[in-house]
Amino acid sequence: MVYTLAQIAARLGGRVLGDAGVEIAQVATLEQADSGKISFLANSKYRGKLALTGAGAVILSDADADATDLPRIVSSNPYAYFAKVSALLNPYSAVPCGVHPAAIVGKGAKIDPSASIAAMATIGEGVEIGARSVIGEGCFIGDNVRIGVNVRLYPRVVVYHDCVLGDNLIAHSGAVIGADGFGFAMEEGCWIKIPQIGRVVIGKDVEIGANTTIDRGALDDTVIEEGVKLDNQIQIAHNVRIGAHTAIAGCVGIAGSTTIGKRCQIGGSAGILGHLQIADDVVIASFTLIGKSIHEAGSYAAIFPFGKTEDWRKNAVHLRHLDEMNRRIKRLEQSKQES
Amino acid sequence: MVYTLAQIAARLGGRVLGDAGVEIAQVATLEQADSGKISFLANSKYRGKLALTGAGAVILSDADADATDLPRIVSSNPYAYFAKVSALLNPYSAVPCGVHPAAIVGKGAKIDPSASIAAMATIGEGVEIGARSVIGEGCFIGDNVRIGVNVRLYPRVVVYHDCVLGDNLIAHSGAVIGADGFGFAMEEGCWIKIPQIGRVVIGKDVEIGANTTIDRGALDDTVIEEGVKLDNQIQIAHNVRIGAHTAIAGCVGIAGSTTIGKRCQIGGSAGILGHLQIADDVVIASFTLIGKSIHEAGSYAAIFPFGKTEDWRKNAVHLRHLDEMNRRIKRLEQSKQES
Amino acid sequence: MVYTLAQIAARLGGRVLGDAGVEIAQVATLEQADSGKISFLANSKYRGKLALTGAGAVILSDADADATDLPRIVSSNPYAYFAKVSALLNPYSAVPCGVHPAAIVGKGAKIDPSASIAAMATIGEGVEIGARSVIGEGCFIGDNVRIGVNVRLYPRVVVYHDCVLGDNLIAHSGAVIGADGFGFAMEEGCWIKIPQIGRVVIGKDVEIGANTTIDRGALDDTVIEEGVKLDNQIQIAHNVRIGAHTAIAGCVGIAGSTTIGKRCQIGGSAGILGHLQIADDVVIASFTLIGKSIHEAGSYAAIFPFGKTEDWRKNAVHLRHLDEMNRRIKRLEQSKQES
Repeated sequence: MVYTLAQIAARLGGRVLGDAGVEIAQVATLEQADSGKISFLANSKYRGKLALTGAGAVILSDADADATDLPRIVSSNPYAYFAKVSALLNPYSAVPCGVHPAAIVGKGAKIDPSASIAAMATIGEGVEIGARSVIGEGCFIGDNVRIGVNVRLYPRVVVYHDCVLGDNLIAHSGAVIGADGFGFAMEEGCWIKIPQIGRVVIGKDVEIGANTTIDRGALDDTVIEEGVKLDNQIQIAHNVRIGAHTAIAGCVGIAGSTTIGKRCQIGGSAGILGHLQIADDVVIASFTLIGKSIHEAGSYAAIFPFGKTEDWRKNAVHLRHLDEMNRRIKRLEQSKQES
Repeated sequence: MVYTLAQIAARLGGRVLGDAGVEIAQVATLEQADSGKISFLANSKYRGKLALTGAGAVILSDADADATDLPRIVSSNPYAYFAKVSALLNPYSAVPCGVHPAAIVGKGAKIDPSASIAAMATIGEGVEIGARSVIGEGCFIGDNVRIGVNVRLYPRVVVYHDCVLGDNLIAHSGAVIGADGFGFAMEEGCWIKIPQIGRVVIGKDVEIGANTTIDRGALDDTVIEEGVKLDNQIQIAHNVRIGAHTAIAGCVGIAGSTTIGKRCQIGGSAGILGHLQIADDVVIASFTLIGKSIHEAGSYAAIFPFGKTEDWRKNAVHLRHLDEMNRRIKRLEQSKQES
Repeated sequence: MVYTLAQIAARLGGRVLGDAGVEIAQVATLEQADSGKISFLANSKYRGKLALTGAGAVILSDADADATDLPRIVSSNPYAYFAKVSALLNPYSAVPCGVHPAAIVGKGAKIDPSASIAAMATIGEGVEIGARSVIGEGCFIGDNVRIGVNVRLYPRVVVYHDCVLGDNLIAHSGAVIGADGFGFAMEEGCWIKIPQIGRVVIGKDVEIGANTTIDRGALDDTVIEEGVKLDNQIQIAHNVRIGAHTAIAGCVGIAGSTTIGKRCQIGGSAGILGHLQIADDVVIASFTLIGKSIHEAGSYAAIFPFGKTEDWRKNAVHLRHLDEMNRRIKRLEQSKQES
């Protein structure tokens, strides 16, 4: 697929400067781009790269509009513009409509004729699958699951019974949606399983990374609101609610019944304990454990700074004596006052 | 399925107060319950909720027996009682016995006629599967695996050859049991693989969460004792032994050859280094790395307290100077003594 | 399979002492070995175990050559030698060549006749698979993937389109190679997906653990160089490069565009932030977050030392006041100087 700058701008907006007839077939970084490719500059700090790029065209902010003579599109948000150009140039490869003969579909399933069910997929009874949705190879969809339109499940996604997947969901391979939450009652030294009878309900425009797990609710539902983006290997426990447009990086664990606000950003390998409330617009650093509710937007962290092992060892040993250290300082202060 | 309070108590014990003929179809929280539902109060602290609930009946401790006029069952352990009521009201949906025509079964496999092998499952040679066990869609069971009675493997569980799964095991989708442990010898700058010839041996009444991995032993076996409960995305390395009735929350990693005692509780995203011994009845906090053996029951932690990023930064910088700080205090103490 | 010590030494080198005709059928630890088994002593510290072992033979270093009268093989690297003996005694079980009738192969795929494609596997269009490679049950191989010779994919591995897998790769069940990286542009409060058009390119002699995920590059490729060993449940983000012969333990997360040097060793549950450079021969402790580039070989750590929860609590509270503590010490020092 090839578009001229003029054709791109006609579809996506933006102002073309220079030769609007330049043909663009692909996107690339400024470093790697050659003449058939378009690149972008999102941060004026890297302006120097424009002089060296082999790109056929670039996407720039208003502030950088004159920083090059290359054919260019000026946009108020070059990075988002670039994302849209890339989507235009890299559409999903066409998938045949209908149910592959090596797929299995349960009784009463309602599958839109424009949907695609790949080989080795198994679709439970009473499942509903909307228009243009693609269920990849070897996916398992439990009974009575409802799947919206334009959903894309990559191969080997598992969705347990009764869950609800909103429109435009993308879920990557190995994601497990709706497994039992971790709920047990202790009786005489043994754990008794508490049936997990809630569902997972996912809003529209969500993306779920590879091998991420979202447990079904114990009694009520686990809820992922619209526009949430989850990276790989995230664990979301039962009855969690994640607010709209929140983005969570890889390997994060969120314990049961915690509610996370809208537009939060959570760094990789962070954790949030259970039964907490996290406000809207909270940013949590990587590797940070949140052990109490956060009621105020802002940025939070708890990272132990790394060092050479010998330095770390020398310093870390005192962490077991901080209270004593504090008392020693207090004694010195008192003796100073007394003197 | 509907039961009266009297019928429930006849099966599960407990003392009925109020109308024993009330019909109950489902369980729910005090907040969400309506007249056909039964709820529970496990903690007297929340007694106030009883006045507001719409539940048709509740489960209470002796201490709270008179805290409401609602039809009720009094039990010494309301939460465990509730778990059993829920299991009664929410049985597994019936699964057809036998081998689905789209499953593949290897030579010499012995599958109990009451067991169920779902579509797309592949069962290796010489596998034994006990009565009423369910092997879900797309599971892979390696050669010579032995599976007890009443086991439930959800779709896409993988069990490598020769492993042993005890009675009543529940394993959720994406769990991988018996993959090779991480064992290599270094020779001239390259890693040489050490064949992993042990097995994974799992006792009865175990539950394994979605996408959890349990590696086979290098030479001897990896062992999960009876009653152990493992949440999602846990990694258990080769030759680990986990004691009976221990519960481990999500995202925990346990390194090779470590032995964990009975009735331990390990918080989410914690870690335990290799070749350690952890005593019985040890509780480990979330996000805590255990780097030495623990010989005494009790509660252990190592969490860096989170704060606003600007506060964290201001404080954390001193972690690289704790040893110096200690020396400065010592100097002050010495000069005080001298003065 | 049984080998005499003489036959083993003829294949693998080393010096035989004692009865070279002893027959060996398996490897075992010194503690568990009986007469048909060979064990090893890698560390002279454990020499005392030699007197107690029931092993038929042992592998020893030159320094320990005379520490026992048992039939033995002397090697400069007993652990590596043991790995090779074990590989000799424990070859992969034979796998039938060819495509299982319950596998599906796309148009234009080129599969070497000595390769094996198991049941329920789906192979995309234009895929190339080299000699003696084994694609396990239920694997998914996307369009145009290139797989070298002697590769072994265990059941349920997913490889997205266009990725390249080098010779001798071992990938365990649940591994996902080539899923989309986590790339979004923010526009007016919503995340816009950035198509991930790079690949994953994996060198020869790599091993990938169960449920590990390696994302495809955003524009350029994600690269795993030769000889890299990855444990289970590792997350490698888009455009990461991992240098040759680096070994990474379980549950590690590596954020986007980071480059890791050759021969590094990274402990379990560690993390490395994005856009960093890690030098060759760096050792990173378990549970350590690396937040800045490391330009010098050596060992690095950032572990919070664990303790009894009551001790931890008493000490940890002061972490929020380290800056104040530092100021208090400074004031004491100043007042001392003034006095």
